[in-house]
Amino acid sequence: MEFTVQQVAHLLKGEVQGEANGKIYKVGKIQEGEAGDITFLSNLKYEPYLYTTQATAVIVNRSFVPKKEVATALILVDDAYTAFSTLLDEYYKMLNFQKIGIEHPSFQSQTAVLGKDLYIGAFSYIGNQSEIGDNVKIYPNVYIGDKVSIGSNTILYSGVKIYSNTQIGKFCTIHAGAVIGSAGFGFAPQADGTFKAVPQLGNVIIEDRVDIGANTVIDCATMGSTVIEEGVKLDNLIQVAHNVRIGKNTVIAAQTGISGSTQIGENCMIAGQVGIAGHLSIANRTSIAAQSGVMKNIENEGVSIQGSPAWEIKSSFKSFAIYKQLPELKRKVEDLERKLKELEKDHSNK
Amino acid sequence: MEFTVQQVAHLLKGEVQGEANGKIYKVGKIQEGEAGDITFLSNLKYEPYLYTTQATAVIVNRSFVPKKEVATALILVDDAYTAFSTLLDEYYKMLNFQKIGIEHPSFQSQTAVLGKDLYIGAFSYIGNQSEIGDNVKIYPNVYIGDKVSIGSNTILYSGVKIYSNTQIGKFCTIHAGAVIGSAGFGFAPQADGTFKAVPQLGNVIIEDRVDIGANTVIDCATMGSTVIEEGVKLDNLIQVAHNVRIGKNTVIAAQTGISGSTQIGENCMIAGQVGIAGHLSIANRTSIAAQSGVMKNIENEGVSIQGSPAWEIKSSFKSFAIYKQLPELKRKVEDLERKLKELEKDHSNK
Amino acid sequence: MEFTVQQVAHLLKGEVQGEANGKIYKVGKIQEGEAGDITFLSNLKYEPYLYTTQATAVIVNRSFVPKKEVATALILVDDAYTAFSTLLDEYYKMLNFQKIGIEHPSFQSQTAVLGKDLYIGAFSYIGNQSEIGDNVKIYPNVYIGDKVSIGSNTILYSGVKIYSNTQIGKFCTIHAGAVIGSAGFGFAPQADGTFKAVPQLGNVIIEDRVDIGANTVIDCATMGSTVIEEGVKLDNLIQVAHNVRIGKNTVIAAQTGISGSTQIGENCMIAGQVGIAGHLSIANRTSIAAQSGVMKNIENEGVSIQGSPAWEIKSSFKSFAIYKQLPELKRKVEDLERKLKELEKDHSNK
Repeated sequence: MEFTVQQVAHLLKGEVQGEANGKIYKVGKIQEGEAGDITFLSNLKYEPYLYTTQATAVIVNRSFVPKKEVATALILVDDAYTAFSTLLDEYYKMLNFQKIGIEHPSFQSQTAVLGKDLYIGAFSYIGNQSEIGDNVKIYPNVYIGDKVSIGSNTILYSGVKIYSNTQIGKFCTIHAGAVIGSAGFGFAPQADGTFKAVPQLGNVIIEDRVDIGANTVIDCATMGSTVIEEGVKLDNLIQVAHNVRIGKNTVIAAQTGISGSTQIGENCMIAGQVGIAGHLSIANRTSIAAQSGVMKNIENEGVSIQGSPAWEIKSSFKSFAIYKQLPELKRKVEDLERKLKELEKDHSNK
Repeated sequence: MEFTVQQVAHLLKGEVQGEANGKIYKVGKIQEGEAGDITFLSNLKYEPYLYTTQATAVIVNRSFVPKKEVATALILVDDAYTAFSTLLDEYYKMLNFQKIGIEHPSFQSQTAVLGKDLYIGAFSYIGNQSEIGDNVKIYPNVYIGDKVSIGSNTILYSGVKIYSNTQIGKFCTIHAGAVIGSAGFGFAPQADGTFKAVPQLGNVIIEDRVDIGANTVIDCATMGSTVIEEGVKLDNLIQVAHNVRIGKNTVIAAQTGISGSTQIGENCMIAGQVGIAGHLSIANRTSIAAQSGVMKNIENEGVSIQGSPAWEIKSSFKSFAIYKQLPELKRKVEDLERKLKELEKDHSNK
Repeated sequence: MEFTVQQVAHLLKGEVQGEANGKIYKVGKIQEGEAGDITFLSNLKYEPYLYTTQATAVIVNRSFVPKKEVATALILVDDAYTAFSTLLDEYYKMLNFQKIGIEHPSFQSQTAVLGKDLYIGAFSYIGNQSEIGDNVKIYPNVYIGDKVSIGSNTILYSGVKIYSNTQIGKFCTIHAGAVIGSAGFGFAPQADGTFKAVPQLGNVIIEDRVDIGANTVIDCATMGSTVIEEGVKLDNLIQVAHNVRIGKNTVIAAQTGISGSTQIGENCMIAGQVGIAGHLSIANRTSIAAQSGVMKNIENEGVSIQGSPAWEIKSSFKSFAIYKQLPELKRKVEDLERKLKELEKDHSNK
């Protein structure tokens, strides 16, 4: 970004105290502020940094009264924390939605239907009969197959690949290298030991406000649809197999894999490197700890599980605590065996 | 697709009963059939759906006699299940091999040798002295380096990257974003604590009828070749390190990783998120359960293993069952200690 | 490559014995040597192969005296092993840095600053105000956003995506499909159960001599920088989350994931499929075994850990050894219970 302090104050409906013409280039923390930074002071624990920071401007509460002289410009607002959040959001939108227009060369099928205010990066490809909504941002080297629909205000970063027949909602963000709609992994064993691909003829449906991380893969359904419901957030390098459904507002961390036909509920929290077997049903609000391996249905809502195979998390940690002392437990058992033998001998001698 | 019922019947060598001009757009299940769908009835458990389905056509056995009136068109064939499979296969081939011709702009080295009936998507790249067989489909944004050979009827989906010197067989399918031939991960420690890359000068050989999933990576050999034998099926996001060999018809699920120089036998079934250490040899027909970590050779054929580290699966599940009861086992041991102490005390008092 | 034996000898400051005009196309092992290969003999265990190899030339120590007639050309040098290493390095450099010039079509912003001796592949993209150092190799389909800087002698293989504001040092190698600078995975829960993206406004800094594997992902910082220090080597399909710092010369194997804000020390060795939780600090020279799950700080340098959750590796293996015998341990405890009961009964009868 490149703004004056005055321009930022205007955006935040605040007033400037000090140098209003200073140039702002980026946001930072008050304790690390450099010339050109804008930062904020809300928690007074950080007040001492206000008097030493090199930042060009600091957003503060209107009610705040400095105890010493301040070298930086102040922007006075009703609530510094909220104003800073607003600034971040505006800056983010600006960064991501500023691009507009069609770069050349790029490829749009003559039968594609294109909305308004698009950015279409160089070397991107839009196939036959695909429909692109208003204000969509398609970065360079993106591939969009045939009969794909993409809702308005969705961003596809560089190198995203969307197979034919995929449907993507509005306000989605799909990060670089993600693959949506590749063939599900289904092979029928043949009499001679070889495998024959089961044709994968379904598609992927991604609803509104879904975020998908870099290099994540979502396979199409064998028949019907693999569905990612509204508000789901997927991190990087995740595997979503054919015919999976992920419920509303579920959040999944990096490198997790979900096998074919599994249904995941709403508002689940799934940590990184989790594996979930196929044809399972996971209840709403399930929490799954990192590296867990889920091998059966989770039927009750709001349960936390851990382990590989995964089970109730508190029991899992109790067993693990004893696992760490297994050598001691074994020694105790051997001790008992020895003592019991002596006692028996002793006893039979009496 | 877009066919009439009559056209499909012709393809399947069947006869139409009912409306032969209905339009078919996709395949579906009988219980979910919508207008424009074609489906089938083989298992009579599903017969009730025949009388209620909205599908435009249903494939049935010639011997089948409906018990009620049927609104949908019927296609009568000798074996409905086989005919439906044939339809899926034909549809799949049509979907994947229908594209033909060279889109522009795309890049083909003047020294590349190109077969017949190719599809070469826009923004794809074919390097020097590479040879592309007949009927190969190269989707947009594919990169093929120098001296690569690709056998006939192979499909490379969008964004596949093939490093120089790679050899790929016939009838292979490589999904979007897969990388074949990247440098093996070999670094020699130096006296000053830094690492020096060991030059990776070998290549990758992929034999016929191999399927490779989206964003999977196969590294080239340090010297010689990393080899994926005929009929191997690899899912998405798999790591295959330098100098690995994977035997015929082995199937590997998503996110599994195989370390350098390991040799995997034929007809193995390896589940998802498995890790296999380097320089190992895994016998034919080994089954490895999900999330297992294989740390030593598997010498006997047909063994199933599980766990991290992995061992014989039945033993592994027996130990895990007791692991879940460890707190109880510990209590029992403490109980025994207490009782034994009392008994000893009691005993010595006598 | 394509050299005569004489040319290779000249490069290695050696002398030819035998046919100096033989053509060399590739390097190989002495036991697998084919016509057109060059190989070496250092360990005399392999001497018998010298008399049977089909290789065109073999590099040997000047002091070496063959016991039989040799059909292949010999190149006499002071130290055959070192000379062969030198040859590999030179060959590798040649392979990777031979490309030069700009292929078309490709996209360079008019505000981009380009160094000398570049290779810029077709369909690659260089955004606004980005700076590319001398001798950088940008393969086809690479995306470089705005305000990116790339140091001299760095190689970006096909399909690498670099988000805006990223800084990359000199002599780095980034393999195909890697993504640098994607948004960190940060979402603030809202009252209605949905999640709002936390704007990710920082960047990624990659220092000199870093290697990054194929399809690996490094997220940008929320504020500030995700930092990969000098000499770090990352394998394929690794996840590095926002605000992580990886210390000098640390080596990380494939499919490992590092959660947000974790700091990893220098000279660590981290095996494959490891998961490291967020906000942790890992001491210098820590070794982490494959598939481990690190859930707390590692404070002492040079420690080896294993397991999920991870702990000291020797203790971990001791517990695992007993875990494998848990059914036996359980039987022993039940045995003890039975015997003790008998003894008690017996005792009370007396």
